[in-house]
Amino acid sequence: MIKVGIVGYGNVGRGVESALKQNKDMELVSVFTRRDPSGVQASVPAVAMDDILSYKDKIDVLFLCGGSATDLPVQGPELAEHFNIVDTFDTHAKIPEYFKEVDSQSKKGGHVGIISTGWDPGLFSLLRLLGNVALPKGEDYTFWGKGVSQGHSDAIRRVSGVRRGIQYTCPIESAVAEVRKGTNPIFTTREKHKRVCYVVADSGADFKAIEDEIKSMPNYFSDYDTEVNFIDDATFDKDHQNMPHGGFVIRSGESNTGNKQRMEFQLELGSNPEFTANVMVAYGRAAYKNSERGFKGALSVFEIPFSDLSPVSIEDLRKNLL
Amino acid sequence: MIKVGIVGYGNVGRGVESALKQNKDMELVSVFTRRDPSGVQASVPAVAMDDILSYKDKIDVLFLCGGSATDLPVQGPELAEHFNIVDTFDTHAKIPEYFKEVDSQSKKGGHVGIISTGWDPGLFSLLRLLGNVALPKGEDYTFWGKGVSQGHSDAIRRVSGVRRGIQYTCPIESAVAEVRKGTNPIFTTREKHKRVCYVVADSGADFKAIEDEIKSMPNYFSDYDTEVNFIDDATFDKDHQNMPHGGFVIRSGESNTGNKQRMEFQLELGSNPEFTANVMVAYGRAAYKNSERGFKGALSVFEIPFSDLSPVSIEDLRKNLL
Repeated sequence: MIKVGIVGYGNVGRGVESALKQNKDMELVSVFTRRDPSGVQASVPAVAMDDILSYKDKIDVLFLCGGSATDLPVQGPELAEHFNIVDTFDTHAKIPEYFKEVDSQSKKGGHVGIISTGWDPGLFSLLRLLGNVALPKGEDYTFWGKGVSQGHSDAIRRVSGVRRGIQYTCPIESAVAEVRKGTNPIFTTREKHKRVCYVVADSGADFKAIEDEIKSMPNYFSDYDTEVNFIDDATFDKDHQNMPHGGFVIRSGESNTGNKQRMEFQLELGSNPEFTANVMVAYGRAAYKNSERGFKGALSVFEIPFSDLSPVSIEDLRKNLL
Repeated sequence: MIKVGIVGYGNVGRGVESALKQNKDMELVSVFTRRDPSGVQASVPAVAMDDILSYKDKIDVLFLCGGSATDLPVQGPELAEHFNIVDTFDTHAKIPEYFKEVDSQSKKGGHVGIISTGWDPGLFSLLRLLGNVALPKGEDYTFWGKGVSQGHSDAIRRVSGVRRGIQYTCPIESAVAEVRKGTNPIFTTREKHKRVCYVVADSGADFKAIEDEIKSMPNYFSDYDTEVNFIDDATFDKDHQNMPHGGFVIRSGESNTGNKQRMEFQLELGSNPEFTANVMVAYGRAAYKNSERGFKGALSVFEIPFSDLSPVSIEDLRKNLL
């Protein structure tokens, strides 16, 4: 059994706890939290973050389920010195710097740190790389959605008069269709995705003013066609509690003789955090296997063969799945 | 520069020659053939197979482009002793045995042998494995086509009265749509694919008899809904000279809380042999890198990280594609 711990008990942390039930070679030891542990209702005892180092010898792999903005830049390198870790660091621009820090701390402590798992970065990155090597002449397209963007939902909720709000990023179907034709179009931001918002307004709020403020918000909405829908609490409760997401990675290329070739990867996720967690768990197995082999340092999904993700022996994989 | 050779100059061999022009870190040294080399018009001098061992020190990786029925079972193990090899062995049931033979000969000679590359086995296998690890609870579906099946086309051409014939395997759209709904249906063979044939008949041939004979052919057609279309030479020349193929690998699963999650990989290939060749070439790079690192033995796609497939440094991959 691979003994694992969860750091941070939000949506992804709970997703990992749930995913572990589908992976019988792993056993959850503890959930670590910065909150008061007595207030955390998990399937195993919650432990205060301050006590985590006393679990050094009881845990094979730690799943870091905090956010990339403020949690992981601190927790990742700190914990990498003492544990094998897996995270979902997703600030693309800072990945090289973050990798370096985790690598240095992992090496120092003799551990394995797998960064930026999940689906983007993660599986989508893998498929982008596969597209580039199999079709060296071609174009990459990534479309996201239909899915909830937490950052954009937060932005809506900061608008005066908005009581509840959620934002879905939606790929524009005609753009996806155009890519699939193999014409390798060049799109503006507005042509690839639209933003669809659902708002429960304060009573007596000015709907028009809310709509205008959302649509003109720089960085978040002004570069997109944005739709703002006003709904009531009951509708919000009924239709907007899940966290679906997904998207498409398309490599549209041609062979050297000019034949068109298309590779496409799609995800349609009923629950974004639960899928992210399932992918993390698979990479947790890879962290364990690499550690057992004596590897020390950081790794990304690019450097890990898929056989490391599976509980099945390589002989059986070759026999049954190749 | 990685120096490479091609064994067998059919559709896939020519595809590799063409793919190498899109991969600037590789240089084609020779094409090896069992035919009279003077009759082979390639971009480099063709060499008789009997002379291949004199190229041992001139070639880093050999691409074996023969067939799985009779060529590779002999050539693979034989050449693996003397060269790093990459092949597309695709007799699924015999993969474990073939792997073992190539592994033993590769180890004996101190080389790397990467077997069963291409897209199925190959990329489709990778995506099946990824689906299984990311969604442990779920079902696998593979649909092939629309694409030419060489074996079925050969079978048609053996029917009396058929002068020219080609067969396309086509996924049944409604079955694919049903899978995408997440209902995890169970299909009969007939419900997943249909077979569409185009025949140029001998003059005076009995169309009805040809159609009946094709449709009732065991193993090839009798388990499928088969469509037989009679066309003339001009139409055959105009519409049926390419070798398109493709298909879908779908993993339809659910998280432990019951949320539906779908992963899907699609290929739409204008040229099947050229895409197969492009994938082989990427694995040629992996064979070279593994050999340089001192690895000896056979490998499948499952055991090779994607970073080994790329000419780009791992630092740049993490920076630009993660």
